[in-house]
Amino acid sequence: MQDKKPEIMESLERVGVTGLKTIVMTNWKNRKYNFVPEIELTMDLEREKKGIHMSRLVESITECIEREVEIRRGSLEEVERNILEKLKERHPFNHAEITMETDLVIPRKTPVTGKTTMETYSVAVKLSSDKGGYTKLLSVEVTGNTVCPHAMNKCNGRTHIQRATGILEIETSYENRIDLEDMIDCVEDAFPSRVYTILKTEDEKRVVKEMYDNPKFVEDVTRGILRNAKKRFKNCRIRARTVSEESIHRHDVIAEGSCMS
Amino acid sequence: MQDKKPEIMESLERVGVTGLKTIVMTNWKNRKYNFVPEIELTMDLEREKKGIHMSRLVESITECIEREVEIRRGSLEEVERNILEKLKERHPFNHAEITMETDLVIPRKTPVTGKTTMETYSVAVKLSSDKGGYTKLLSVEVTGNTVCPHAMNKCNGRTHIQRATGILEIETSYENRIDLEDMIDCVEDAFPSRVYTILKTEDEKRVVKEMYDNPKFVEDVTRGILRNAKKRFKNCRIRARTVSEESIHRHDVIAEGSCMS
Amino acid sequence: MQDKKPEIMESLERVGVTGLKTIVMTNWKNRKYNFVPEIELTMDLEREKKGIHMSRLVESITECIEREVEIRRGSLEEVERNILEKLKERHPFNHAEITMETDLVIPRKTPVTGKTTMETYSVAVKLSSDKGGYTKLLSVEVTGNTVCPHAMNKCNGRTHIQRATGILEIETSYENRIDLEDMIDCVEDAFPSRVYTILKTEDEKRVVKEMYDNPKFVEDVTRGILRNAKKRFKNCRIRARTVSEESIHRHDVIAEGSCMS
Amino acid sequence: MQDKKPEIMESLERVGVTGLKTIVMTNWKNRKYNFVPEIELTMDLEREKKGIHMSRLVESITECIEREVEIRRGSLEEVERNILEKLKERHPFNHAEITMETDLVIPRKTPVTGKTTMETYSVAVKLSSDKGGYTKLLSVEVTGNTVCPHAMNKCNGRTHIQRATGILEIETSYENRIDLEDMIDCVEDAFPSRVYTILKTEDEKRVVKEMYDNPKFVEDVTRGILRNAKKRFKNCRIRARTVSEESIHRHDVIAEGSCMS
Repeated sequence: MQDKKPEIMESLERVGVTGLKTIVMTNWKNRKYNFVPEIELTMDLEREKKGIHMSRLVESITECIEREVEIRRGSLEEVERNILEKLKERHPFNHAEITMETDLVIPRKTPVTGKTTMETYSVAVKLSSDKGGYTKLLSVEVTGNTVCPHAMNKCNGRTHIQRATGILEIETSYENRIDLEDMIDCVEDAFPSRVYTILKTEDEKRVVKEMYDNPKFVEDVTRGILRNAKKRFKNCRIRARTVSEESIHRHDVIAEGSCMS
Repeated sequence: MQDKKPEIMESLERVGVTGLKTIVMTNWKNRKYNFVPEIELTMDLEREKKGIHMSRLVESITECIEREVEIRRGSLEEVERNILEKLKERHPFNHAEITMETDLVIPRKTPVTGKTTMETYSVAVKLSSDKGGYTKLLSVEVTGNTVCPHAMNKCNGRTHIQRATGILEIETSYENRIDLEDMIDCVEDAFPSRVYTILKTEDEKRVVKEMYDNPKFVEDVTRGILRNAKKRFKNCRIRARTVSEESIHRHDVIAEGSCMS
Repeated sequence: MQDKKPEIMESLERVGVTGLKTIVMTNWKNRKYNFVPEIELTMDLEREKKGIHMSRLVESITECIEREVEIRRGSLEEVERNILEKLKERHPFNHAEITMETDLVIPRKTPVTGKTTMETYSVAVKLSSDKGGYTKLLSVEVTGNTVCPHAMNKCNGRTHIQRATGILEIETSYENRIDLEDMIDCVEDAFPSRVYTILKTEDEKRVVKEMYDNPKFVEDVTRGILRNAKKRFKNCRIRARTVSEESIHRHDVIAEGSCMS
Repeated sequence: MQDKKPEIMESLERVGVTGLKTIVMTNWKNRKYNFVPEIELTMDLEREKKGIHMSRLVESITECIEREVEIRRGSLEEVERNILEKLKERHPFNHAEITMETDLVIPRKTPVTGKTTMETYSVAVKLSSDKGGYTKLLSVEVTGNTVCPHAMNKCNGRTHIQRATGILEIETSYENRIDLEDMIDCVEDAFPSRVYTILKTEDEKRVVKEMYDNPKFVEDVTRGILRNAKKRFKNCRIRARTVSEESIHRHDVIAEGSCMS
């Protein structure tokens, strides 16, 4: 049925499965990770075919995940490349893409008392396969804050402060090794201060001091992310976005920018 | 089919439609409102009946909304009572409930420059019909902020500030007139300061001053909402909840309480 | 403060407000509409300026909305153009964008019994201002269904059916008049059958018959949307996406395509 | 500061942290699980105290999670009891509650071809500590489908089918051992058919056959969940809720019920 000619002859760019949640285990820098990512896997469809064989996409995911358990490959993009290669054997395509969105938990130390905390970040890894090879798009989402320099100036050192979210996206070749942990650092270092799950009073005093010593607009945070990423990663297309949940407004403010490195 | 005996004989408490979005027009204190609420309408189902007649629930909503356009009833709970009465004529029940969730837009003035702003609030009105008559549950959700008194004390007047959401729920008899606008005031007055969609520099200075002059934990805001509501509304069951989107943490902090008036 | 040189000199593409909810009233084909859209308004920021003046963006929205009440302009893109023109007077930019996302309620008749129902659609209108003038991106999201032709073939006329969502986006010049209602028709006509808020038994029989007479993969629906839009609208960039909430899987399936007309 | 008398003297029922995401590792029936749950931990606050010490709540979570890695306790409620006991040592309370929401991935076999699939379920475990001891509330959310018996009857065996979600909640004493896997079975067995991540053509034919042989309203599914749970679990308060994403409507239909066992 899928191989029949469709009534309307029009090629499609992305056909596949989305919102598929499954378990993915990797071994990355000698630490084991168990993720339950949300996966989207799509391929193009030529104009003469009515449909794709959806179950082959899911089988490619499942088989690679099982295999992965044994061979313990490393990064999420390595797992994804295995899936796209497996898919290629089962189902022809010109273009295919796979995205995994998941939580990444990283242990940290609080700034003064040195307590261990576990900090959780949303990350996404997308791998695209074209005639010319593999391209990846890595993305991290990091919680921080903004501290208004304008209000601080007008109100004798008092100001409004709020939670903000910084997002860094990097598009580059498959071979260009970029660690998600380093991308997260680029974003955290662009905020007035880092945030932590535990803060004892002495830690909290430090965080507040950093906020006031280092006031930043949402525009400043985005520029900081761009600069940090440009310094650290080469041969990349870099995109940054910061959203500040204003404490004096119902709405948010945003700043987006991009550059090449 | 719905009136057949079901294989498993077990009465059900709430059967109906949910997530139904439609238009509701009312005339409230000589101002016309057009809402597009999300509606849930349910009724109980006795153990000997396989199912309810879902289309009658939807017809009760639709007819009342059409009628409403003409007779221009006032509050959302009046519209809801019409719907439950219409439903009663079409489909027997012991207990039925209807909830409408919508946005309420209220014009305000900024605190210093007096500019007009439109402020938007999430509100919900639920009406329950039982043997004994009608009971309503009114709910408003208001954006504000918290300003940490503990950090202010430890950091010489500096502190962390963040957006917070205050929720006030009031359960009372249908006849007890309670205005959603007054409920919103109870919540807004419990925050360190109100928030506004527009703030010119002089307004922003005032808001920042109020924040620092009036630092509050999430617990303080919840207690303030309870006190304000207890003073203003009589013969009610009152519930308050505040969620503060901490600017120094990834997680939120909450405080919930309740009282009778 | 905003006009100072920033520490990091990097131009930004989109700086502004997001998630701002307010009331917008229009008069469109002699019918009055009251929307409470969610608005995003952004502009570019040159590398030598630390920040934009956020309150001027909000003022541009507020003033135009007030004015709108009086002059009763028509489409959402006309309201948006007024806002961007107002903004241009207050704050220089090279590029600015405004998006309004809202619900659109349209009265329909059920297919057999001819009952009036109110059907609700998510729509978005985005207007971009560049040196060369205005470009718009119109988007509608419509609920429908898919009916698997493969299973129908293998199971003697039985098959799995599920709710699906079709999205049509059209990018064109400001001057090219495209009605959101017509875009919605293009999507609804691509499904196996339309869906309705009320269905009496005779209506339901018709809808079920249409489903079985007209089985469609998610790929077929997307191709149908593309064809319908290509026929109806000229000088447009057209993009279609269908998501099917499979009744036999936990995950969804999708199909996306695009074309020019 | 937290121990000061508050301006408004009103006791609060639930004060604490919410939306905290961290890693929890357990060893359950000789299988290791790595969860990244979303955690809410609250306690009551007496009327004479201004606030609680939030960092002690987070420390109780963190320490137990670290300890957990070593001692490899079993169920999520065991981890939660450790956290509440740890909290009791640090911070006095009358009532405290902890909830963990996470994904649970379970391997299954497809019905005909016997392929291994990984199926993912949303689960939540809440533990409450009161004077009288511990009570738990277990919850599972399972994807399935509904198949309309009314339409099937009126349309000669044709009908509308759609994805549905079944939720089972069980409240019982801490000591009453209830496996989340068994709760999931109670819900899956109440649907017309189970759903699977992979389905080869022969599997899909079986699933479609089960759907048509076993048509069910949303009311039937809820009653089935209640019956299955009542048979399997004793001394429980049972609550079931099914939401059906109608393929012929924009809105959903629901059925809720409860019973004791």
